[in-house]
Amino acid sequence: MSQLRVHNLTMSVDGYVAGPEQSLQHPLGVGGERLHGWMFATRAGRAMLGGEGGTAGVDDAFVVRGDVGVGATVMGRNMFGPVRGPWPDEEWTGWWGPRPPYGHPVFVLTRHARPSVTMEGGTVFHFVTDGPESALARARAAAGGADVRLGGGAATIRQYLALGLVDHLHVVVAPVLLGDGERIFEPAADLAFRYECAPPVAGDGVTHLVLTRRPR
Amino acid sequence: MSQLRVHNLTMSVDGYVAGPEQSLQHPLGVGGERLHGWMFATRAGRAMLGGEGGTAGVDDAFVVRGDVGVGATVMGRNMFGPVRGPWPDEEWTGWWGPRPPYGHPVFVLTRHARPSVTMEGGTVFHFVTDGPESALARARAAAGGADVRLGGGAATIRQYLALGLVDHLHVVVAPVLLGDGERIFEPAADLAFRYECAPPVAGDGVTHLVLTRRPR
Repeated sequence: MSQLRVHNLTMSVDGYVAGPEQSLQHPLGVGGERLHGWMFATRAGRAMLGGEGGTAGVDDAFVVRGDVGVGATVMGRNMFGPVRGPWPDEEWTGWWGPRPPYGHPVFVLTRHARPSVTMEGGTVFHFVTDGPESALARARAAAGGADVRLGGGAATIRQYLALGLVDHLHVVVAPVLLGDGERIFEPAADLAFRYECAPPVAGDGVTHLVLTRRPR
Repeated sequence: MSQLRVHNLTMSVDGYVAGPEQSLQHPLGVGGERLHGWMFATRAGRAMLGGEGGTAGVDDAFVVRGDVGVGATVMGRNMFGPVRGPWPDEEWTGWWGPRPPYGHPVFVLTRHARPSVTMEGGTVFHFVTDGPESALARARAAAGGADVRLGGGAATIRQYLALGLVDHLHVVVAPVLLGDGERIFEPAADLAFRYECAPPVAGDGVTHLVLTRRPR
């Protein structure tokens, strides 16, 4: 059964996955980029940016695992870009340049319709205006039996968590304080019953936690 | 200089240090006791309850360190007991029986005055009605140059954090989801500048994080 999976979601000690005041200049909010240093120290993380070298230990294994068995991605509009409201034109095609690191169909949740955009390397951005369940259904169909990866941002992950649709949630706790920003976990009394958390795995300066949905 | 220290503050993955619906039956809120299993697996944690045996590794070292150099404790009324409002009588003397595991003066923050209570083994409960700064000043004086330990509950720790008075904050992340309850970190934009977090230390199924206040 095709799963919906979140990977490498990095959280500060005070519970934020992005800092405050997100903008074009600070897409992860002020200080938010400090969360992700661990990932760009790994071989897989560097390769994602077109670089070489990097560590090949536990952290790298987690990054690699995030791509295995994934046939499509769903993301929120904030992860796709900083543009708000109706699309002024079709110029913005994501943060990732002409060849995004997906290589498969990506479904972007938005309230504003837009034609699909085909990028280099197999990534095609589709814009879904009829809600998260529809986006997931379309992603599942496009993945052809493989899993669907849920990107971000925080609001999109919260939305799918609240709908009970996330099967696998890999959270990384970084020894960083952000003070304010976007949380991933909002009060949800049934969360404790719906998910179980594996024992923590020590990485290189971060801690990996994997939540999986309990069988219904 | 006498420090104000928090130790063994255990937080769920979703950021709660106590579950929802705290009561006499569930002093740590529903499910909250699941947070503390790691501590009662250690030698020091068992000894606290009058027991024997237990592990002697990283987790035990952190529990032991929580008591070293401490000459007084400050706690909120919720940590002292479930009684709310004016004290109906002087019957309630804490959760810990006739010989509490403190062995030094304990200052309980409350809005309702009450005479001090001397327990067995050196613990004396004092009730402070003029606020957290006064409680800390009295505890520092009673500690005679030693450090002051800040107990709980969550609201009391939040209060001292907001006042910038906590010097050392040992947080333990347990692979538990509570869904709802009491958070320790509320949005506080300056927290990121006031504290730094050491790299995580892997315990036995939990992760230790130590925050220290940056020099002013």
